[in-house]
Amino acid sequence: MTEVTRTFFESRLQRRGLTALVPTMGFFHEGHLALMTAARQAAETVIVSLFVNPLQFNDPADLERYPRDFERDLEMARAEKVDVVFAPSSEEMYSEPPLTRVRVAQVEDYLEGPRRPGHFAGVATAVAKLFAGLQPDLAFFGRKDAQQLALVRQMTKDLSFPVTISGQPTIREHDGLALSSRNVFLGPEDRTAALTLSAGLFAAADLAEAGEREGGRLLEVASKVAEGVDIEYVTLASQNHAQPLAELDRPSFLAVAARVGKVRLIDNVAFDLVAGQVMADRGRRLERESVLYR
Amino acid sequence: MTEVTRTFFESRLQRRGLTALVPTMGFFHEGHLALMTAARQAAETVIVSLFVNPLQFNDPADLERYPRDFERDLEMARAEKVDVVFAPSSEEMYSEPPLTRVRVAQVEDYLEGPRRPGHFAGVATAVAKLFAGLQPDLAFFGRKDAQQLALVRQMTKDLSFPVTISGQPTIREHDGLALSSRNVFLGPEDRTAALTLSAGLFAAADLAEAGEREGGRLLEVASKVAEGVDIEYVTLASQNHAQPLAELDRPSFLAVAARVGKVRLIDNVAFDLVAGQVMADRGRRLERESVLYR
Repeated sequence: MTEVTRTFFESRLQRRGLTALVPTMGFFHEGHLALMTAARQAAETVIVSLFVNPLQFNDPADLERYPRDFERDLEMARAEKVDVVFAPSSEEMYSEPPLTRVRVAQVEDYLEGPRRPGHFAGVATAVAKLFAGLQPDLAFFGRKDAQQLALVRQMTKDLSFPVTISGQPTIREHDGLALSSRNVFLGPEDRTAALTLSAGLFAAADLAEAGEREGGRLLEVASKVAEGVDIEYVTLASQNHAQPLAELDRPSFLAVAARVGKVRLIDNVAFDLVAGQVMADRGRRLERESVLYR
Repeated sequence: MTEVTRTFFESRLQRRGLTALVPTMGFFHEGHLALMTAARQAAETVIVSLFVNPLQFNDPADLERYPRDFERDLEMARAEKVDVVFAPSSEEMYSEPPLTRVRVAQVEDYLEGPRRPGHFAGVATAVAKLFAGLQPDLAFFGRKDAQQLALVRQMTKDLSFPVTISGQPTIREHDGLALSSRNVFLGPEDRTAALTLSAGLFAAADLAEAGEREGGRLLEVASKVAEGVDIEYVTLASQNHAQPLAELDRPSFLAVAARVGKVRLIDNVAFDLVAGQVMADRGRRLERESVLYR
């Protein structure tokens, strides 16, 4: 039985055991569902928050057209046996204009930070508010937003929220395109062109697993494969603070951002170090088309 | 039985019923004890945090000489039947240099804000961390730090912390001087001069209770009485956002800051509106000398 709550107060009631939170902006795809599945396995009570957070949109047009379909989302959350869908009104989230901002220095200095002014302060503030108001024990985020994950981890540690942060593999279409609610705005040609992003990252991941540690070489390979699209950056960055790296000598991620048609896409592969060995996390591919195409 | 804890984790264990937090920087006086008494009445579990927070000191010399005496504090907390004294090491509070800052716009624009750069970001960050890590149901603050109280209330609301904030009357020496740990640095002559601050505020409060609503007149009276000391500001400000007011037409406080000898002192009287009537909160006076003189 999935309950819909509109206030923080209501959302804190009727918990059993550990509570896991999956923060989302709705318009679910298999990426969100994978987070709900992981949450379901880890905790007795699963809360999915659903709020299109205006604070984190630097572009009003992007906010305006962000896809929304509550009934669809609710049905999908029900199928995942989510206990609570917390869908606050903007009044509950930001009754009067909020004066408080949570900022995480350093982590926002590169990659998405300079390109989306105010975005990460908006994310950090909203996530802090969800953690404060819902008091989860665990929270699940996708590795696709690797810099956001770094930011959330740092904020959680710095503010001593007793929340365990779990980063989950990126979910991809069967051909490699990373799922994103914004993919619905890709025309057929853009859809094909967008594939070069993940293809470039995978080529670089192959190289890294073959022993290449020089950042420059990895960027080169990833950029070359994706040269048909309008690339904003390709960067190797540390997982902990999202700082650019010259060498793959620690847990890191190779990130790419590009404009494809009218859509801005990001993607990455993560490099974890296990017993001194580099292991690439390319994410996981669906067997067939995602729900975004149905 | 008062337990001493050093980590957030440990401090969250063994709670019963509602938990009240009294955040302090130690070196207790009757002002702190009054907060503990109020907390003891309101909640089953009382936590007093004791941490001299470097983030909120804009002046390193002030941080350096801030009075500290843990054994004395612990004994006093015991006498107040405090359940937990949370005295974290700086490693527990700020293991690596913290990258996260919580800022509350507007509320920090006047009074103490411009005179103590970084102070309120330090307060907001530390209080958010205590709320996040300790998860109290209530928290007690003195009205003496009226702007801090406004800041904490706003931050709590903006971030949806489920914490009820209680502002408690200023505690004063029998002659009117507001208690402050820094009073121990006042020489005998300074001690006498410092009295003019509260005397000025009381004179203004008398006037307000007699019907005066013009801010300028209240400031004038307060400033005139205190003219022997080096006044930094006398300001009538709103209780909710600490914004300067020309008229006493809402809940507000008349605040004064001054340098007396080597010490910087602040004080205020609060003006609450009850059924349209102005009621001044001058705080409460001790019958005899505070513990600061023993």
